[in-house]
Amino acid sequence: MISLDHTHDPAVRSWLDSANLVGTDFPIQNLPFSVFRRRGTQETFRGGVAIGDQVVDLAALTASSALDGVVLQAARAAAQATLNDFFALGPDAWRTLRRALFALLHEDTAPARVGTVSSCLVPQLEAEYTVPARIGDYTDFYTSLDHALNCMRIMYPDADVTPNFRWMPQAYHGRVSTIGVSGQQFHRPTGQWLSTGASAPAPVFMPSARMDYEMELGIWIGQGNAMGKRIPLEQVDEHIFGISLLNDWSVRDIQVWEMTPLGPFHAKNFATTISPWIVTVDALAPYRTAWTRPAADPQPLPYLESAANREAGALDIRLEVSLQSERARREGRGTARLSGTSFRHQYWSIGQMVAHHTAGGCSLNPGDLIGSGTISGPGPGEAGAMIELAQGGQKPVPLGDGDERGFLQDGDTVVMRGWCEKPGAARIGFGECRGTVLPALAV
Amino acid sequence: MISLDHTHDPAVRSWLDSANLVGTDFPIQNLPFSVFRRRGTQETFRGGVAIGDQVVDLAALTASSALDGVVLQAARAAAQATLNDFFALGPDAWRTLRRALFALLHEDTAPARVGTVSSCLVPQLEAEYTVPARIGDYTDFYTSLDHALNCMRIMYPDADVTPNFRWMPQAYHGRVSTIGVSGQQFHRPTGQWLSTGASAPAPVFMPSARMDYEMELGIWIGQGNAMGKRIPLEQVDEHIFGISLLNDWSVRDIQVWEMTPLGPFHAKNFATTISPWIVTVDALAPYRTAWTRPAADPQPLPYLESAANREAGALDIRLEVSLQSERARREGRGTARLSGTSFRHQYWSIGQMVAHHTAGGCSLNPGDLIGSGTISGPGPGEAGAMIELAQGGQKPVPLGDGDERGFLQDGDTVVMRGWCEKPGAARIGFGECRGTVLPALAV
Repeated sequence: MISLDHTHDPAVRSWLDSANLVGTDFPIQNLPFSVFRRRGTQETFRGGVAIGDQVVDLAALTASSALDGVVLQAARAAAQATLNDFFALGPDAWRTLRRALFALLHEDTAPARVGTVSSCLVPQLEAEYTVPARIGDYTDFYTSLDHALNCMRIMYPDADVTPNFRWMPQAYHGRVSTIGVSGQQFHRPTGQWLSTGASAPAPVFMPSARMDYEMELGIWIGQGNAMGKRIPLEQVDEHIFGISLLNDWSVRDIQVWEMTPLGPFHAKNFATTISPWIVTVDALAPYRTAWTRPAADPQPLPYLESAANREAGALDIRLEVSLQSERARREGRGTARLSGTSFRHQYWSIGQMVAHHTAGGCSLNPGDLIGSGTISGPGPGEAGAMIELAQGGQKPVPLGDGDERGFLQDGDTVVMRGWCEKPGAARIGFGECRGTVLPALAV
Repeated sequence: MISLDHTHDPAVRSWLDSANLVGTDFPIQNLPFSVFRRRGTQETFRGGVAIGDQVVDLAALTASSALDGVVLQAARAAAQATLNDFFALGPDAWRTLRRALFALLHEDTAPARVGTVSSCLVPQLEAEYTVPARIGDYTDFYTSLDHALNCMRIMYPDADVTPNFRWMPQAYHGRVSTIGVSGQQFHRPTGQWLSTGASAPAPVFMPSARMDYEMELGIWIGQGNAMGKRIPLEQVDEHIFGISLLNDWSVRDIQVWEMTPLGPFHAKNFATTISPWIVTVDALAPYRTAWTRPAADPQPLPYLESAANREAGALDIRLEVSLQSERARREGRGTARLSGTSFRHQYWSIGQMVAHHTAGGCSLNPGDLIGSGTISGPGPGEAGAMIELAQGGQKPVPLGDGDERGFLQDGDTVVMRGWCEKPGAARIGFGECRGTVLPALAV
C-alpha cells in the first residue's frame, strides 16, 4: 500500500546544515515546491524547492550542469512561473525530480555538485512567494463532523448534521480571484446581514461584525480527468500533487443571511489565503494512517469505499492556529495559540473527496485547488474556527495578554502551521499560512 | 442615459446581402464577437465578428490594410484565441472597433474596401466556435422571482421565496472546467439521490432521472475590479462587454439531496453550455427599459439603487427554448417549442447583480462569466426550466408528435434562441445555444 523508500529515511542528512536542525519544517525528507522570487525585485517568478532555510532556485538549477535527461525536463516544467505544466507531467515526473533533488542535497553528494547546487540557493528570508499555479477552479469541502456539529450546536444543542453529511463529502465551488498567498492582507467585507435584536426583518449593509478564519488544507490537483470520466477512489493518488495550508476566511453574519438556499457566496469570496509551499504526496507517505468510520454510522457507498482507503486513506497532519493582534505586534509580542488538532480525524478522506467530486463527470485540471473543509478535532481545544472556540462569540477566547476575541478584530493576523511527525519518520512541515484583516473601506 | 448613435439606426444596410435579410440575427446593427476557426481544420482559433451569414475573420482583417491606429490595436487584441486582452482594453476600445467594423460593412463603403473586407469573410456554415475567453471565475445568479416561486410551489402551493430573495440578487460560484460552447454533448451524470418511495433514508448512486435545462443569459465581464474595491451600480456598464445565451443544465434529484446547506454542486457542475456569440452592451442599448419593483416589495438598499437603473436597468431580450428528441432528429423533424419570455421581467437587473457581486470586495477579472439565473416570465408558457413547465414531472409537456417530457431523456437536444426587436430599432439576435444529453456512462 504505502510504499516508502530511501527518501523517507529519517537518518539521512543534507550537506546544508540548516536542513538538519531539529524542528526545521524543511529537512531533506520534505522538499516542497513553491513559486518565488527575491523580495523587492522585479525578477521573474519561478519554481523553487525548500531545503532548510534556503530555496533551491529551479530556474538556476536547470541552467547549471546539475541535471540532465528526464529530470532536467521535469525541472524545466517546475521552474516556470506557474507549476501547472509540471503538475500535468504526472506522478512519475514528480517523483523523479524529488529523488534527484534528494540525491543532490544528500550529505554524500560529491563536493563539485554541492558547489553547483549551492550557487542555486536563495535564502528564504530574502524570498517572496506567489500563488504557485494558475487555479482553474477552486472547490471547498465540508468534511469534518466535529466542525459541523460544533457549529450546529451553538444554536441548537441537540442538533445533528443534515442527513446527507454522512453519505457524501459535501462541497461548494469557491472563488479563485481572491486567493492569495501567505502574507495576504484584505479589507473586512461590507455586506448584508441581519442585525441582532433588530425588530424589523430588514437587513443592514455594513461591515461584517463576525469575521472568522477556518483552518483547512489546500489539495493541489496534479493530473486532471476528462469531462465525463471519473477518477475512481483507487486512482486518486495518481492525480494529487501535494498539499498546502489554507485559511478559508469567513464572515458569519453575512453567511447566515445569504446562504439559504444557494450556499456561501459573500461569506467566503472576499479572501482565501494559502501557504506558499506544497508538500508533495510522496513526502507525506509515512504519515498515512487508517481511515475509519464509526460502525453505527452509514458505511460509504461503493464508489467511496476501498480497502486501500480503509488502510491508509487518512493523513496525520498536525495543525495549529495562532493569532497576533495589532496591539501584540506593536508591543513586540508574538502570537497566541488558539487551537490545534490533526487532519486524521476528518470524517471523509481526500481520496473520497476527489472520487466524489468527479463522480458526476466534473472535470478537474492540473492546478485546480481543493479545500479540505474546516478541520476540527474531537477535543475542546481542537476547533478549526473561532466561531466554535468562542461559541458564536458568547465565550470569547483569551489571548493571554488580557485581550480576548469572540470574532476577529481589524489588525488581527491569523497564523496557521502544519507538520507531520511520528516515531521512525522525519518531522516535515508546511511552513506557515499568515493573513491579516484590515479595516473595512468606506461604503 | 441610453445614448444611441448611427450604429443603432435601423435604416442602415450592409453591402453584404445576407445581413439585410428580414429575420437575420446578425444585421449591421449587431456585430457580436466570437472565437472561431474553419471547421475540421487545425487552424488557430481567433476572434471573429458576425455579419449576416458570414464571420469577419479579425486575424485576416488585421493583416489587411483595412484598419490602422487605435482601431488596429483593438482589433489585434480581439483577433487572439481568447478575447480576454480585448475585454481588458475597456469600453472605448470596444466601441471604437464596433464602429470601425460598422463603417467597413456599411453599404456606402468604397468598393476597394469592400473587396478587402470580403476577402476576410468566412461563411458561418464552415465555422466552428470555442469558449471565447479564458474564464477565471463563473458565477451563477438566482434572480427571477417567477422561477423561484414556480419551483417552490411545485411542492408547497402557498410557499414564498426565502426572506433574502427580495433583498439581494442571490448567487453561487459555479464550475468553469465544464463550460462548453453550443453543440456541447455530455453524459447524463451519475450521483447520489433519494429514490422516491424508498422507505430507507439511504441514497442510491445512479444516473440522474431528473435531467433539466435552465434558460439563462451569460454576462461577460469586460473590465474587472481590484480586490477590495467595489463596482458601484452607476459604473457597471463600463465593466460589461456583452451577453451570450447560457444553458445551466441541472439534475433535480441530485440537487434536492445535496444542496442543504452548501448549495448546488453536482447538480450543476457536469456541464454548462453557452452560445458562441457575444452581443455587445453597445448593440443592446436600444432595448434597455425601465427596471421596476412592486411597491409592496422591499425597495433596494442604497448600493442596489440608482435613478439610471430605474430608468433603463432592464433589458428586453426575448428568449425561447425548444427541444428536438433523438426520434425527431432521426425522423427528420425539427424542434418543438417549449416556452418563451423576456429578460425584462427579471427581479434584479444585471447592474444590481454586478454591484452586489463586488460589494464585499470580491474581484472580477476580464473574461469572468456571470449567469443571470433562470429566466422565467409571469405567464404559464414563460418558464425557463422544464421542472416548472412540467410541474416537477407530474404534467409532462407534449412535444407535438405524440411524445412528451417530464424531464429530459437521453438524446434530447435543447436549443435556446434570443433576440431583441422593437419599433424604431433593428432586430438583432444571439444565434443559438444548443446542447445534447448523452446516456450515462457505466458506473
